[in-house]
Amino acid sequence: MNRTKFLLPEDRIPTTWYNVVPDLPNGVPPLLHPGTKEPVNEADLEPLFPPGLIAQELTTEREVDIPGEVLDIYRQWRPSPLIRARRLEQALRTPARIYFKYEGVSPAGSHKPNTAVPQAYFNKMAGITRLTTETGAGQWGSSLALACSYFGLECEVYMVKVSYQQKPYRRGLMETFGASVTASPSERTEAGRAVLAADPEATGSLGLAISEAVEAALASEGKAKYALGSVLNHVLMHQTIIGQEALLQMELADDYPDVVIGAAGGGSNLGGLALPFLREQLGGGRAVRTVAVEPSSCPTLTKGTYDYDFGDTAGLTPLAKMHTLGHDFVPPSIHAGGLRYHGMSPIISALREADLLEARAVPQLDCFEAGVTFARNEGIVPAPESTHAVRVAIDEALAAREAGAERVILFTLSGHGHFDMQAYIDYFAGKLHN
Amino acid sequence: MNRTKFLLPEDRIPTTWYNVVPDLPNGVPPLLHPGTKEPVNEADLEPLFPPGLIAQELTTEREVDIPGEVLDIYRQWRPSPLIRARRLEQALRTPARIYFKYEGVSPAGSHKPNTAVPQAYFNKMAGITRLTTETGAGQWGSSLALACSYFGLECEVYMVKVSYQQKPYRRGLMETFGASVTASPSERTEAGRAVLAADPEATGSLGLAISEAVEAALASEGKAKYALGSVLNHVLMHQTIIGQEALLQMELADDYPDVVIGAAGGGSNLGGLALPFLREQLGGGRAVRTVAVEPSSCPTLTKGTYDYDFGDTAGLTPLAKMHTLGHDFVPPSIHAGGLRYHGMSPIISALREADLLEARAVPQLDCFEAGVTFARNEGIVPAPESTHAVRVAIDEALAAREAGAERVILFTLSGHGHFDMQAYIDYFAGKLHN
Repeated sequence: MNRTKFLLPEDRIPTTWYNVVPDLPNGVPPLLHPGTKEPVNEADLEPLFPPGLIAQELTTEREVDIPGEVLDIYRQWRPSPLIRARRLEQALRTPARIYFKYEGVSPAGSHKPNTAVPQAYFNKMAGITRLTTETGAGQWGSSLALACSYFGLECEVYMVKVSYQQKPYRRGLMETFGASVTASPSERTEAGRAVLAADPEATGSLGLAISEAVEAALASEGKAKYALGSVLNHVLMHQTIIGQEALLQMELADDYPDVVIGAAGGGSNLGGLALPFLREQLGGGRAVRTVAVEPSSCPTLTKGTYDYDFGDTAGLTPLAKMHTLGHDFVPPSIHAGGLRYHGMSPIISALREADLLEARAVPQLDCFEAGVTFARNEGIVPAPESTHAVRVAIDEALAAREAGAERVILFTLSGHGHFDMQAYIDYFAGKLHN
Repeated sequence: MNRTKFLLPEDRIPTTWYNVVPDLPNGVPPLLHPGTKEPVNEADLEPLFPPGLIAQELTTEREVDIPGEVLDIYRQWRPSPLIRARRLEQALRTPARIYFKYEGVSPAGSHKPNTAVPQAYFNKMAGITRLTTETGAGQWGSSLALACSYFGLECEVYMVKVSYQQKPYRRGLMETFGASVTASPSERTEAGRAVLAADPEATGSLGLAISEAVEAALASEGKAKYALGSVLNHVLMHQTIIGQEALLQMELADDYPDVVIGAAGGGSNLGGLALPFLREQLGGGRAVRTVAVEPSSCPTLTKGTYDYDFGDTAGLTPLAKMHTLGHDFVPPSIHAGGLRYHGMSPIISALREADLLEARAVPQLDCFEAGVTFARNEGIVPAPESTHAVRVAIDEALAAREAGAERVILFTLSGHGHFDMQAYIDYFAGKLHN
């Protein structure tokens, strides 16, 4: 039998997250306080995050234990499968071996619960009763809603208005998990009111929704905290559960990747898979190429500047050293909502600067074409975000065919597209453009 | 560690389907030819189905080998997980142990690919190039579309018009897998034109969509065959892969069900789980209660008559001895589209007559309430059809609490509700009624 799935039993789930910061050649530049422009300390972050997460954001430990309560929930869907895309390989007539780590098996359908669950847990431990957040495409919002339902926390989601209107199913999912969902810009915050005053028809942006969620947490007098679904160090660390598992599963497959690929919006999906493989490389193990894929319409890594910038529109968040298109960048309306962020994780940005990571920007139509090819061979309809990784995985496989060379390709299929079928419908109808 | 998931490695996937017919005390009454009213023979079925499936429909063998090509595809998502619903148990404060077999992990999100894949395979083997079918909620249509894409067959789906209009995402999914989707009633068939002539605004029914799909196959001069997603003996047999796996997984859990529960529209989901457990019982093993759950708005087993009836509106299909509400029954518009069928599998009907199966009808609002409770504890949003099984599983668990008795409950969670979120949105908005 040619094995296609490499499953770990639930008692082999990794029990630690990996923190890449101490292993990076030049470290990661610290966050700066938005007022003083000095490196943030624990007290600076306290209005936004609970102590457990602040400690993780600032830690220099390489391995951090995953709490038992978090592992108990992870085990509802983890370890996620590593799948060999044999049918896709055949269709491409490539000598390459293509593996994907499928994160769409989570209850919210993406990798986001990997960090939503520990974030909800550490807030619960700190006595917090409500979390505020933003969401674009809705993957993060629905994941935090799910995590809050597990721990009995209220969840207040600011959803970019254009998505709120176009994605009622995502909103329905969040409400099913018990969250309250508000279209952003809203009348509930100063940041929202200011935008609406200037333009009552404003459809919002992720940067603005972050401003609203942060403002709502700051105004709660300590009852609510804010949760972010990507970018920050502790978020990438939580996502390393993906790569920790994948290392064990590649061993089961008796194989090892030459190239590791992930779509990059804020960077946590890519980092989650790639960082544990980079640890092996930095520790003297086998080298892998790591490829970050971004949409050509929001080319943060390939065309942004590497500089300190705010994470949100209103300038309420700490400043992060990152590749950025500017915090007032409003990306064109494309469907890969999860990749429409002006900035990038400081860790991913530092890897790029250290030449430990390649970045590639791909146009939308090429991504959907790859997504349909993938769906028709592997049966899974990728989320529009995930089609970016599929595109580059296919390109790598075709290059291997050209070269007549074996190549082992590993990518994250970060989520399914069940809530994004309108994008596929529009693609088939010829309504999408690059 | 308290285990929550019972996974089988892919090399332990069962390699046979189970055919219950020879084990039934009084057998199953044969299908009758719609013209002659005589029991059908192989030649009668040939215009509709390929030889491989006709042989399975009529076989008296107890075990039928699963072809290697089908197993290769099954292994993309099978064995599906058996999950202990520990968080739900805690929320209900019940001494019962609740297990569910989760079929939503398939690429189409339900149990339907278990039969769609072998149906496409046997048609491919017979040189057929196109399959026609009907779909209501879209679970079956998207599963056949998927299976056809695996084998390079064309797929022509007649989708009940009300669903076609209300469920664009399901349609998008079928089109992503390469199928063509036509709203039924359509102008493409006599059956459809007759209905439209009488009522141009007709929104269709499953029985009519079946008539259109059958007519399209019959008119194809042997190039196309028809595929049915439930009801028939061979369909239930394909679905027994669910129960074959569940038996092995209950062994891993060191447990055994007292009661086995499934939602029943045409009966294949329930039969798929329950029949292998019934085999054990009929062979002298431990007895289980088997409970079929249907919507009170379409109470086939609880209020239908047990009689020969057509499977479709126009009377093109063979007659089946079954519980039926009449082939011209138009069920009220409820959201559990997959349960809105006037008839029932002859096997399930025979089991009911032999008192080997209980039937229970449940109102829609009670089902959604159960679905939301399940989602907030187990993280998975059930398909509206599946909430019927969840409702009765919860009721059984609450009864166990009342009785202060241990009870082991097993049900199929036949699919997720990702394409049905509008139903949940309507439920929260108070727009649904019993």
